[in-house]
Amino acid sequence: MTVSRVAIIGLGLIGGSIGLAVREMLPDVRTTGWDASADVRKRAATRGLVGTVCETAAEAVAEAELVILCVPVGAMGEAAQAIAGALPAGAIVSDVGSSKRSVGEAIARALPGATVIPAHPVAGTEKSGPDAGFAELFRHRWCIVTPPAGASEEAVAKVSDFWEGLGAKVEIMDPAHHDVVLAVTSHIPHLIAYTIVGTASDLEDVTRGEVIKYSAGGFRDFTRIAASDPTMWRDVFLTNRDAVLEVLGRFTEDLTALQRAIRNGDGDTLFDLFERTRTIRRSIIEEGQDDARPDFGRSDH
Amino acid sequence: MTVSRVAIIGLGLIGGSIGLAVREMLPDVRTTGWDASADVRKRAATRGLVGTVCETAAEAVAEAELVILCVPVGAMGEAAQAIAGALPAGAIVSDVGSSKRSVGEAIARALPGATVIPAHPVAGTEKSGPDAGFAELFRHRWCIVTPPAGASEEAVAKVSDFWEGLGAKVEIMDPAHHDVVLAVTSHIPHLIAYTIVGTASDLEDVTRGEVIKYSAGGFRDFTRIAASDPTMWRDVFLTNRDAVLEVLGRFTEDLTALQRAIRNGDGDTLFDLFERTRTIRRSIIEEGQDDARPDFGRSDH
Repeated sequence: MTVSRVAIIGLGLIGGSIGLAVREMLPDVRTTGWDASADVRKRAATRGLVGTVCETAAEAVAEAELVILCVPVGAMGEAAQAIAGALPAGAIVSDVGSSKRSVGEAIARALPGATVIPAHPVAGTEKSGPDAGFAELFRHRWCIVTPPAGASEEAVAKVSDFWEGLGAKVEIMDPAHHDVVLAVTSHIPHLIAYTIVGTASDLEDVTRGEVIKYSAGGFRDFTRIAASDPTMWRDVFLTNRDAVLEVLGRFTEDLTALQRAIRNGDGDTLFDLFERTRTIRRSIIEEGQDDARPDFGRSDH
Repeated sequence: MTVSRVAIIGLGLIGGSIGLAVREMLPDVRTTGWDASADVRKRAATRGLVGTVCETAAEAVAEAELVILCVPVGAMGEAAQAIAGALPAGAIVSDVGSSKRSVGEAIARALPGATVIPAHPVAGTEKSGPDAGFAELFRHRWCIVTPPAGASEEAVAKVSDFWEGLGAKVEIMDPAHHDVVLAVTSHIPHLIAYTIVGTASDLEDVTRGEVIKYSAGGFRDFTRIAASDPTMWRDVFLTNRDAVLEVLGRFTEDLTALQRAIRNGDGDTLFDLFERTRTIRRSIIEEGQDDARPDFGRSDH
């Protein structure tokens, strides 16, 4: 292990899961933590999410070698400012944000001269808050580390080793490329899910009760990610605007083409796409990124 | 039990599950079955999907009181024609198609004078074929029965009782209303899922390997339903065109509004929607239509 004292700022789903994963998988690492909410700090202490829950951010980071900011991406700059006076010389500052270009800049701006190595564990659930975390969240998932140009190789290695210690697989990536990749694999899927759930609940000729009753036809899959933390996701769309709008444009073009195929009764165009998309599912299962059981194994057939 | 001899035409996921459910839950009911594919008939016999796998559709329905057509909605008319000469007087013809207006008409056209009571069990998985079925598929799920105007009440009751016998809850609905409700809760979700999976695999600056690796960020939820049977879904969009295009128009309007909110940095509009969509998820779980465990219980945290 290359770091032995880790401070976690923000003790929700991700921060709490990091703390629990450290306790289980890196028992020699000491963790401190802080959250802006007193209620969350109390729950974190009760669940033992970190070794010591501190009363201030400054206290939490005072002896840290690695500080991980686990707050919504719009609050990263502020969280970095809260630790600015107390950060030990040589400490590495990282985060878990879902957009990396703007977040890396915000943290660097708040902590001039500090070693900032942003990271993004691609893992989560639709739950949030201090009761949602669990130690296995990162196991077999990818963590993307996005060092700025000229970053210390040693610092990058420490952050990478830490995540591998929690069971994750690490990939180093350019922040701008990260933001496009995640726009496709995470941000646009969330945006679409939020949209269709909203559309369904606003229709005049279909009641909300009907939407709920017949959701097993496919709709319920979308409601899961549309139940994710609203603050976190608002911030993702505001901070990764350019990549999100670019991918959204492509999605809309493709949807318009299918709309035309349906209008024209062009079954071949529909069939060709529907056949092609099956192979992606197969690859995701082969790579261990999803459950192969029908219905995600929901009902344990 | 009000019917004692049921013929199943088409022995894929739904037809096979009906057969297995009858064997388990209505053991006194005799089932016969037929599928257009000799390979499927062979697998059906091996798995015991029905009591007797017949060599022709006519043979399968020869003594049936209830015939259920379990083929893609575009093949319903043809399946009905295949049994036209052999259907016993007084037998009820039903189906399991996902669009009901056009299917009801196609069956009635092929079988003039027959008692046709269309139905749609809102249940399924992304798997298809004779190996995909299981007896519990319909348990706690809704089955929508859409009798034509003037249908025999006795026939409607027999079909309803049959589905309740397999563990389903039954709702009687007007076929046109069914088609709008299912466009929202099933057809548009599938269309969107197919589209985004296609968009993701066609991008130039994000590789297919990246899409697969980072799919746990949300994308993988969409790939499940985009792995559903292509023939079935092509037919659904072609036969429920009007309702699908109507709901798709509403979805596109809503998505355009969110796109504008992202472009303008309007966080409040985003937050308000993301907050609102959470309550729908909660209702779906309360009504027993989905698994409350995080990530659908995928990894049994």
